[in-house]
Amino acid sequence: MTKQRQIHLAKRPEGMPSMENFNFVEADMPTPKDGEVLLKTLYLTVDPYMRGRMRDAKSYVAPFQINEPLNGGVVAEVTESKSSQFNQGDIVIGHLSWEEYTVANEKHLRKIDPNVAPITTHLGILGMPGQTAYFGLLDIGQPKEGETVVVSGAAGAVGSVVGQIAKIKGCRVVGIAGSDDKIDYIKNELGFDEGINYKTQDVYKALKDACPNGIDVYYENVGGEIGDAAISLLNKFARIPVCGAISSYNNKEADLGPRVQTKLIQSSALMKGFVVNDYSDRFNEGAEQLGKWLQEGKLKYEETIVEGFENVPDAFLGLFEGTNVGKQLVKVADPEYATLPNR
Amino acid sequence: MTKQRQIHLAKRPEGMPSMENFNFVEADMPTPKDGEVLLKTLYLTVDPYMRGRMRDAKSYVAPFQINEPLNGGVVAEVTESKSSQFNQGDIVIGHLSWEEYTVANEKHLRKIDPNVAPITTHLGILGMPGQTAYFGLLDIGQPKEGETVVVSGAAGAVGSVVGQIAKIKGCRVVGIAGSDDKIDYIKNELGFDEGINYKTQDVYKALKDACPNGIDVYYENVGGEIGDAAISLLNKFARIPVCGAISSYNNKEADLGPRVQTKLIQSSALMKGFVVNDYSDRFNEGAEQLGKWLQEGKLKYEETIVEGFENVPDAFLGLFEGTNVGKQLVKVADPEYATLPNR
Repeated sequence: MTKQRQIHLAKRPEGMPSMENFNFVEADMPTPKDGEVLLKTLYLTVDPYMRGRMRDAKSYVAPFQINEPLNGGVVAEVTESKSSQFNQGDIVIGHLSWEEYTVANEKHLRKIDPNVAPITTHLGILGMPGQTAYFGLLDIGQPKEGETVVVSGAAGAVGSVVGQIAKIKGCRVVGIAGSDDKIDYIKNELGFDEGINYKTQDVYKALKDACPNGIDVYYENVGGEIGDAAISLLNKFARIPVCGAISSYNNKEADLGPRVQTKLIQSSALMKGFVVNDYSDRFNEGAEQLGKWLQEGKLKYEETIVEGFENVPDAFLGLFEGTNVGKQLVKVADPEYATLPNR
Repeated sequence: MTKQRQIHLAKRPEGMPSMENFNFVEADMPTPKDGEVLLKTLYLTVDPYMRGRMRDAKSYVAPFQINEPLNGGVVAEVTESKSSQFNQGDIVIGHLSWEEYTVANEKHLRKIDPNVAPITTHLGILGMPGQTAYFGLLDIGQPKEGETVVVSGAAGAVGSVVGQIAKIKGCRVVGIAGSDDKIDYIKNELGFDEGINYKTQDVYKALKDACPNGIDVYYENVGGEIGDAAISLLNKFARIPVCGAISSYNNKEADLGPRVQTKLIQSSALMKGFVVNDYSDRFNEGAEQLGKWLQEGKLKYEETIVEGFENVPDAFLGLFEGTNVGKQLVKVADPEYATLPNR
């Protein structure tokens, strides 16, 4: 095999992205140099924040470049090693290009043990989404026993973990999501106290009913009118970790809503934006605690796995339609050398 | 003298308040009981936050009641005492009714010494506005030497102190205010580095020019498009103490602007509403430090004093037109028994 496929950014989207923003390109098989390995992509993750990287604007992560491969979290198998740290058949995780085979420096990879937890969990509950939930909720939200925690995007990779950690902390947890199946999932599988389907319910009214004692923590994943409603129901000294605003990512026009200043004053509330890398020096703490809760059965997770490299763009676009429950992943290939445990 | 005047809330304003929201009412002279004193009102303060109290809505201070006197910070003279703690001729401060003479319980008054600082400073730089500046800037804003601090309402009672404290802390300070006289005042009297006249300049563009290294702290007093502009120029880990949003207080419709979620995420910024009473257990610290800076000549202040009880509504309404520089006060009367030092 001397050829493989990459996915390039064909052009920057205006508004909602579509297939025409992606371009499949045939490329030569890369060759590792000293200190590098050749990797076979097994799973890759598509995430809402990648929409922001499609803009040519200063932000917390560098923008994608036109006619270059996109990139993100990938679980891969070492198929050829010129590194003393990795052997053929090792499973690794890294921030890598969207291509079927890629070369990476040993410094940018971390080996994962397929026997401890499924390898996909390192892209989800034990990876960036789990860490995002953990630090946003605990460091910024600081939930206390008996308080009411509301989370939007509640059935997603981050929101589903936020709600479960809030339950572990003894809070009343209300999740907002976009289908009755998702509401059923967060209530009956994950143990949320209440769920609100924003596509069929009046969110403000439903939130008011579901939070008779007001909102102490609102974990923001979506923005828009759902955020507006939650911000109208804050208790004194409420906290709002601002993780995402997926409802606005594809807006062409300014995203207008009620200004928050007066609401924040009335409740002496705190609103704090963050990205998971703000906590990079504490990732060990997060991974350890999340892994412990996972092993104790206190955390559950769901994955939506699409098969096939050719379906990566579709999986990404589906995020904005809310087709995923839990972490959205793409399975690109099976390993060639490694044997993964049956689960 | 057996009669005196009170100012009642005649009806709740819709939009901008006007004279018709106030009613002057003749009332009997009140009589103190045991533990109470009869007070002659000397100075009273009118403040933007009082607009919120004219609404019949849950907020951080109880709403004013129709056909009842309004109330707020007052400096008064004890003219008759049935309290062992106060003597005739004492100057006191308290949260009191808007009337020429009032009765108050000794527990709700604090004696002030006219020889240490002018008695009006207890309604201004040493009082609520000074404390509001002090705690909002230092506790929430946490300015560090060399950082850029922007304050709106910069020539007002709070903003003028915010900027001066930020200068004491070694910051670059940019003030936004509504007239060239005010800009001249904050730059040439108070030592701000830059001033922006929002009535004649494009605030976003002017802020961008005045803050070549971005904004680290934005002390929010006004909201609206000025707030929008500042929030567009935040540095990573910026802090926004949200003290007021005077531009929206008289809005009948929802106050719409760009939602802040994406901006807060891009800069991992913090936005925190507060009211001065959140810091009531630290008022001694604030008063002591502010008094020290005042005596050292590091803090300057300005007062706009209107004379005459009949002009209280006018003075209040003027706040929304920006007619005041520094603290807006009304002088109601001279003391009967006390002799104040000449300054």
